[in-house]
Amino acid sequence: MTSTAADVRALRNRLMEQVEARLTDLLDTERKRWAEVDPRAAVPVDAVADLVAAGGKRLRPAFCVSGYLAAGGDPGDRAVVDCAAALELVHAGALIHDDVLDASDLRRGAPAVHTRYTAEHRFRGWRGEARRYGEGTAILSGDLANILADRLTQSLPARARPLWNELLTEIIIGQFLDVTVAAEGVVDPELSRWIAVCKSGRYSIHRPLLLGALVAGREDLAATFEEYGEALGEAFQLRDDLIDAFGRSEAAGKPVGLDLEQHKMTLLLALAVRRDPRVRELVDSPEWDVPALRDLLSGSGIRTEIERRIDGLVARAVAAVNQAELDEAWRGELVVMAREVAYRDR
Amino acid sequence: MTSTAADVRALRNRLMEQVEARLTDLLDTERKRWAEVDPRAAVPVDAVADLVAAGGKRLRPAFCVSGYLAAGGDPGDRAVVDCAAALELVHAGALIHDDVLDASDLRRGAPAVHTRYTAEHRFRGWRGEARRYGEGTAILSGDLANILADRLTQSLPARARPLWNELLTEIIIGQFLDVTVAAEGVVDPELSRWIAVCKSGRYSIHRPLLLGALVAGREDLAATFEEYGEALGEAFQLRDDLIDAFGRSEAAGKPVGLDLEQHKMTLLLALAVRRDPRVRELVDSPEWDVPALRDLLSGSGIRTEIERRIDGLVARAVAAVNQAELDEAWRGELVVMAREVAYRDR
Repeated sequence: MTSTAADVRALRNRLMEQVEARLTDLLDTERKRWAEVDPRAAVPVDAVADLVAAGGKRLRPAFCVSGYLAAGGDPGDRAVVDCAAALELVHAGALIHDDVLDASDLRRGAPAVHTRYTAEHRFRGWRGEARRYGEGTAILSGDLANILADRLTQSLPARARPLWNELLTEIIIGQFLDVTVAAEGVVDPELSRWIAVCKSGRYSIHRPLLLGALVAGREDLAATFEEYGEALGEAFQLRDDLIDAFGRSEAAGKPVGLDLEQHKMTLLLALAVRRDPRVRELVDSPEWDVPALRDLLSGSGIRTEIERRIDGLVARAVAAVNQAELDEAWRGELVVMAREVAYRDR
Repeated sequence: MTSTAADVRALRNRLMEQVEARLTDLLDTERKRWAEVDPRAAVPVDAVADLVAAGGKRLRPAFCVSGYLAAGGDPGDRAVVDCAAALELVHAGALIHDDVLDASDLRRGAPAVHTRYTAEHRFRGWRGEARRYGEGTAILSGDLANILADRLTQSLPARARPLWNELLTEIIIGQFLDVTVAAEGVVDPELSRWIAVCKSGRYSIHRPLLLGALVAGREDLAATFEEYGEALGEAFQLRDDLIDAFGRSEAAGKPVGLDLEQHKMTLLLALAVRRDPRVRELVDSPEWDVPALRDLLSGSGIRTEIERRIDGLVARAVAAVNQAELDEAWRGELVVMAREVAYRDR
């Protein structure tokens, strides 16, 4: 029996609905049991639940479920649903902590967790420093998101555990490098490229896909999913950089233009530095002239070059799945997903 | 064959040495592999490793290993060593995050992680806000400590996993309640007692002991270890409060007197509020008169009352192990440990 594109999409959608139900159910149960102790005890659960409910692309669960189904995993097995839901919780935790690190006040169209609880503290006239309370609440809520993810991975097969842990580690090291390279003002395009691959490529696409394949017991897909995931991961990050540099805040649902303001050596900027000595000069000075940089980036053809690079990365990802031992319909679906990720507008 | 007190202590010490070796080995390996990417990538590993190397009482690993051996666990099995080392890493992560939440600058006789990296940022004249960099480094280092703990729990038997996750959850909820009750100025001795039991009792003694027993496959010890752990946990927390209220910073290796300054409704203060209307009056006012409070606490006989309460709790813990189905020598050892915890000076 051959499945059609419609079949595989319907199957994935069914599992993705189960992932949403798992998230809602876990967070509801957790909220209720702590609210019984004291209504305040449910606040960190609410902070996580509100962020999860506010949307997001569900990119990591989608790649995990797709990797699993493409690898021939049994659609009735709950382990992959738990694993995909755990990925979304880890992502929520990373966003909550990152927004503190980046002093970013808006997330998924709403105030970031630290912003919301800093405001709450001020509004209520509580004791102590409002910022510390807000950021403290965000630290603990992010911690809780990771712990709830850990709970969902109790059903993860042993063969997938090392990869799960590696994914968690890479997020942290990548994020620290991002922060410290910005603080030190390091101009090192190779290091920036490594950070982008580590932080976004692997974590968003490659690792979730491979996790899905490992849950299904298909270790042999590792090389295919690595090639697809690393190429598409870089495209994903380049699109992120383009949206931040040239997108509109309303469309993105988060502030844009932050990377330049925060002296982030993004992949986009790293490429521009190599291409245009005037960009390097601006980036090498201790204080960045942000409007001048933005002008240079808009005018210097870097946008076109990045778009061409994204095209090339998508082609690499497509070639990888087309050569792999995969069901025809799943090959097609992975190609569609690659295009959706690489050419999104938010 | 009957084991003597010296036998059981020697056996525990041997396993505790293995716990230390496991921690050192894991952190060294992790440090090396990230330093190969870039020296900066090893910074969060160093932050965790330095804190672990700076000492600490190793209370949680000691109770975990003791619970395991008292339950008749095989001393040659590595799972308990990994579990005990994981507890110490979780503790390191909690301390790193708590020091940010409490704005506490000293830990184990050295600058707290956030303090150290805030100073580093200032000293180097890096870009952005020094406090955000320091606290951001602490957030990520604490996250990493938890992830390394997760790595060590891959060998944890399935029967112990739910308890492991519950311990992690309780730390976070307890810590959030602590912070928010202080911010709101809630005077609720019952809630404060619950927080103390949740944060310290369970996490420091009861859960580690029971984890050890579960790794050994002795679920039947749950009731004994709950009674011992909850009583001793409260004694542990009361001693902590006494050290903070009346101890000296040099002996404690951390700042003392912080609880009152930060408006923390400790177990000690909650008891004093119930006992002395003048304490309640001072605590009910929006700004605390800290010197007046300290005078009242020193003079009002609360110290003696707390010491008597600790005596009672130790007696309860001792009675619990004396009634349990445990090896005679291990009973004696658990009694010695109870006294060490309850009557320590740091």
